[in-house]
Amino acid sequence: MDPAKTSADNLAALLSPRSVAVIGASEDQGKFGGRLFRMLLKHQYGGTVYPINPVRETLFGLKTFPSIDALPEAPDMVIMAVPQPKVKEQVAACAARGARAGIIITSKFSDAGAAGAALEREIVQIANARGMRLIGPNCLGVISPANRLVLCSSPALEVDTLIESPIGFVSQSGALMATLFDRAYDIGIGFTHCVSVGNQADLELCDFVEFLIADPRTRVICTYIEGIKSPARFIELARRARAAGKPWLAVKAGKTADGSRAAFSHTASLAGDHASLEAVCRRENVVLMDDPAAMLVLAAAMARYPARQVERAVIVTTSGGGGALSADRLSEAGIPLARFGQATQQALAALYSEGQAGNPIDLGGRRHEDGADAAEVGERTAALALDDAQADLGLFVMTTAPALADATARLAQGGAASGKPMLFVMQPGKAAAAARARLLEAGVPFTNSLGEAVEALAAWCRWSAWRPESVAQPGVDMVLPAGLAGTLDEAAAKALLRSAGIPVNRGQVFADAEAAVAGSAAIGFPLVVKVVSPEIVHKSEVGGVLLGVADAQALRAGLQAMRERIAALAPQASITGFSLQAQEEGELELLVGARRDAQFGAQVVLGSGGILVELLRDIVVLPAPLSRESALAALARLRVAPLLQGWRGRPALDVEALAAVIVRMGWLAHALRERDFEIEVNPLKVRAAGAGCVAVDARARIG
Amino acid sequence: MDPAKTSADNLAALLSPRSVAVIGASEDQGKFGGRLFRMLLKHQYGGTVYPINPVRETLFGLKTFPSIDALPEAPDMVIMAVPQPKVKEQVAACAARGARAGIIITSKFSDAGAAGAALEREIVQIANARGMRLIGPNCLGVISPANRLVLCSSPALEVDTLIESPIGFVSQSGALMATLFDRAYDIGIGFTHCVSVGNQADLELCDFVEFLIADPRTRVICTYIEGIKSPARFIELARRARAAGKPWLAVKAGKTADGSRAAFSHTASLAGDHASLEAVCRRENVVLMDDPAAMLVLAAAMARYPARQVERAVIVTTSGGGGALSADRLSEAGIPLARFGQATQQALAALYSEGQAGNPIDLGGRRHEDGADAAEVGERTAALALDDAQADLGLFVMTTAPALADATARLAQGGAASGKPMLFVMQPGKAAAAARARLLEAGVPFTNSLGEAVEALAAWCRWSAWRPESVAQPGVDMVLPAGLAGTLDEAAAKALLRSAGIPVNRGQVFADAEAAVAGSAAIGFPLVVKVVSPEIVHKSEVGGVLLGVADAQALRAGLQAMRERIAALAPQASITGFSLQAQEEGELELLVGARRDAQFGAQVVLGSGGILVELLRDIVVLPAPLSRESALAALARLRVAPLLQGWRGRPALDVEALAAVIVRMGWLAHALRERDFEIEVNPLKVRAAGAGCVAVDARARIG
Repeated sequence: MDPAKTSADNLAALLSPRSVAVIGASEDQGKFGGRLFRMLLKHQYGGTVYPINPVRETLFGLKTFPSIDALPEAPDMVIMAVPQPKVKEQVAACAARGARAGIIITSKFSDAGAAGAALEREIVQIANARGMRLIGPNCLGVISPANRLVLCSSPALEVDTLIESPIGFVSQSGALMATLFDRAYDIGIGFTHCVSVGNQADLELCDFVEFLIADPRTRVICTYIEGIKSPARFIELARRARAAGKPWLAVKAGKTADGSRAAFSHTASLAGDHASLEAVCRRENVVLMDDPAAMLVLAAAMARYPARQVERAVIVTTSGGGGALSADRLSEAGIPLARFGQATQQALAALYSEGQAGNPIDLGGRRHEDGADAAEVGERTAALALDDAQADLGLFVMTTAPALADATARLAQGGAASGKPMLFVMQPGKAAAAARARLLEAGVPFTNSLGEAVEALAAWCRWSAWRPESVAQPGVDMVLPAGLAGTLDEAAAKALLRSAGIPVNRGQVFADAEAAVAGSAAIGFPLVVKVVSPEIVHKSEVGGVLLGVADAQALRAGLQAMRERIAALAPQASITGFSLQAQEEGELELLVGARRDAQFGAQVVLGSGGILVELLRDIVVLPAPLSRESALAALARLRVAPLLQGWRGRPALDVEALAAVIVRMGWLAHALRERDFEIEVNPLKVRAAGAGCVAVDARARIG
Repeated sequence: MDPAKTSADNLAALLSPRSVAVIGASEDQGKFGGRLFRMLLKHQYGGTVYPINPVRETLFGLKTFPSIDALPEAPDMVIMAVPQPKVKEQVAACAARGARAGIIITSKFSDAGAAGAALEREIVQIANARGMRLIGPNCLGVISPANRLVLCSSPALEVDTLIESPIGFVSQSGALMATLFDRAYDIGIGFTHCVSVGNQADLELCDFVEFLIADPRTRVICTYIEGIKSPARFIELARRARAAGKPWLAVKAGKTADGSRAAFSHTASLAGDHASLEAVCRRENVVLMDDPAAMLVLAAAMARYPARQVERAVIVTTSGGGGALSADRLSEAGIPLARFGQATQQALAALYSEGQAGNPIDLGGRRHEDGADAAEVGERTAALALDDAQADLGLFVMTTAPALADATARLAQGGAASGKPMLFVMQPGKAAAAARARLLEAGVPFTNSLGEAVEALAAWCRWSAWRPESVAQPGVDMVLPAGLAGTLDEAAAKALLRSAGIPVNRGQVFADAEAAVAGSAAIGFPLVVKVVSPEIVHKSEVGGVLLGVADAQALRAGLQAMRERIAALAPQASITGFSLQAQEEGELELLVGARRDAQFGAQVVLGSGGILVELLRDIVVLPAPLSRESALAALARLRVAPLLQGWRGRPALDVEALAAVIVRMGWLAHALRERDFEIEVNPLKVRAAGAGCVAVDARARIG
């Protein structure tokens, strides 16, 4: 295998080895190698297994070999559970013997400081030099039900059979991989392949995502990410996953400062800026989630109901209370309840008491007078509700109830006719054991937690609502001014914006008060005046800003007073000039900026302007360049978005002009993409429709 | 029992009956009465049990009686599972026979329309007239492990023994009661008493909360609420629960419009205004939660670690990934991680690799070189971490791991020495079964869901941070103007505010333009002018507002132009005058209002002012009257709170003047408490510290 070309085919071969050598194999179940070896045999891997053990003749009846050199052939795969100081020599021996791939479980490499990181690099070089690829170190190996290949010692594998579901899982945490594997088993769900990538010294998360995209048995891709090693490849793979019709779900650690620090100490991954990652994932429809358990629920549902898009939910429940709480949770998560059409309402009204035939449907509200069998009514209810044209999905919230197992099975049966997705929430403990078994039989997805169900559904709705972004129009072929570098003052920053086609307010810097008064008429009153001084950063704190200067006389007096204030408050400051600017009115102030994210490159940042930006964290990040449609969609996500549309009798604002500014900022960011930079316009004043918008303050730093 | 005096003693007797009659008892497990009767016997109730069945001599070997009249004594308690049309005659017979209390399981009363509601009222009258009290109808009965009394047919009761934990639970949903009972059993938790109150026709939620406050075996009170029947009593009981040192947890359905509608159709409860309920619960330290499962987790933890206050958490985990994700979730929920002191850091550094001794602690990061036993290191780690002065609570996030059961038990053992609370999150499925059993043995609380754990801890932190509100100072003894009623215009609303001691801007209404110009100097320039016209509601839409009028000349011209605009835009409007007001500056605009909540009476409302109030929903509700301290605490909860303190070089604002306005608004609301009313000042302009604040626009409606 050529390390430069890790193709999906190569990895498919790697995960389907003809032979596996286990270094450190034993029968001792107190040892890692003993558990690992037993799991491999227990799940009856079809290829040749070579236990390596220098002191035993056989292990579990299988002939052993004293060392990797003693094998009759070069093994396709080697898995090693050896102490950290011995890893290097073992890798070297495997590489020399011609092994194609190795899994290093051992930790204390880049996860444990600089020396470990150096050793890790050396080991990768030794392996790659002979064409051997590595998974890990600091990983938990591979569980590949599709190949009956278990190279993992986790107690989660103490199951009689491996379940194969069309779900692939790549995880930067081995423990989370095994935990989800175990949790999945309880809800009747398995995987095609689970790979724990650990420190990603050689093969990394994207390699296995690429493999899963190509893998015909995988339909849904799950990932647990601590840091992204190759952002460009991540984006490219997201596109390929979409093209293949495979949803890609991701839980990413490091959303907060505390989580980010913890992720770093775990696999030495730099979490990166979460807002930038979110922006990229939103654009590429990689579904970011918070809870791995909820990711599993969604994967199970998507695997069961492939390619289904969902928007509106129906809640059917054995408990009125459960229905009310579920409606609250869905509503807070932004998932609308289906409003039944008249035919459905009428049909339900025949089954339910007055006022009980809405959504959520409380099965306890059924009419009693006709003596209808409860399970029968449930089945008809599920069929009616999911048949409604408004309903995309049934959420069945189950509590303890008489004959719960039968009731559950009949609901699942009733809903099945529609072909629409169903998700059951099994809230009781042991009292629902038989009901869970019926759902397992029927292959209907369920969870025991309403919170997980709601997070899964909200993510499914987001995934469904995604639309491809139209390609950004070719921009002005932006020629950046020569020598652009360092921190730009307001005038220089505005010049840069103007060169990008972004409107800025009229203005000019004058060397002294006389020149300012003389030139003021050409700019036009009313004016804003700002002092220019390299020593003064916060102009308004020293009285260095004048607003609403009405005429030349007021300007003259104002400049005099300003000089006196500054002389008193900042005696050391040299005044190099006065900036006179047209005072601009606007209905709304926004922030529009751009920056380079260390991982994902050029980004545009939008937000509520003025002082509200930091206070409200009303910020949207967009990868650059971007199209008018993306700009409009991003504006719609701002909290102040209703103000753009004409809120409470105020005029509708010039959204088109605003979108044009955002698109241009995107092209400017794109032109700067190789530099470390930050640009911020705050505020951009937005006027009524047709009247445009204008940047009245700006700053920039170009690295 | 006197219905007018439902004392806790009365209910204690009611839940500990000397005899129980079961109307509809049978052996048929397909029938409600059969299941109910068997559950009562199965759990070996100590009192006399009278099965009522007209056709059988004995049931499960117990002598039956053909009717309630045939009993040898008046039964203390009767439970009836009879068809809806027969309930009335049965209640009448029981009341006549002298029964003290009855539980009506049957539904289709006030939950099923007006006729049912009327019948329900009639039944209560029949019972109460003879001193008989009722639970239900439309309920699931009572499970009282403290009394070994099971009057509930739920399959959740198919357990060998009832667990008694010091937790009481009153629920408006029977299914949720039984579901939590069942779920609790799986984590080794039980209850003193669970009561399903159904439609609350007679005895209601507050009656049983009062009983639980007095019950010496109950230490934590859980409630599931759809609507509050007696708000004043709710508040009174919250105080008594606090005085008794018993935390009161509540899940309330109807937070959203969808949930509210569903709650109403369930038990005919009007959900009420959630913001008002939240305000009352915050003041009284009733802990509102979203998820009943999380409430159970918190109740279990509070019962296990009584009276413990928590603020900072330590995360200990078998998985670095789990630690990072847990840190993210806690951080997003506002729960700070403990920062270890130096002694703890040093002690941990001896056990863990470089950079791994922080919080969260990943047990996988331990040093290997000394060959220390993993479980031993875990135990020492838990002891060290919880011993740290900064740590209030240990959250142990467990994934699959070798020897998980032993590892778990040793962690619990290590942490126990500190006496500080521990909560385990058991993320695997069956692979953690043995570990769960060890926690059950040790009596350490756990949950299988990180989401539930985080919600429980966040609620525990809120409960711990609560401080009693200082009593509101006696206010101005406010005499409301005579004849105050209807919709007040701006001038009348401002007069009312002024009478309450709230500063309003200077202003006067003049009948015509000439009078306005003549009187303008007395108000002082610059001025704001607003047209006064009964036909014009939105003044600015017809050009009926002038801002920044600088002098008499500008005023004259402005009034003329205004008249012309209005004549053109609203020709039917009669102009009855012009309101001239001093134009006020301010650093921040807030909304301050008051209203009467249908349930909880007079409330003060605070929020971001201007147009942002609805956009941001930056609103805090406070019960009135209120103290300065409450006003300050409420201001600190606003999203714009940082602006009050002098944000980014802006001046600190006059928070004291603002608090005084809020307190006065509270007294005004209190004076109006018997009326249906709404008052809104928007904006109140807030100036720099020392410069006060002033209401510049106001409206009011007094019912």
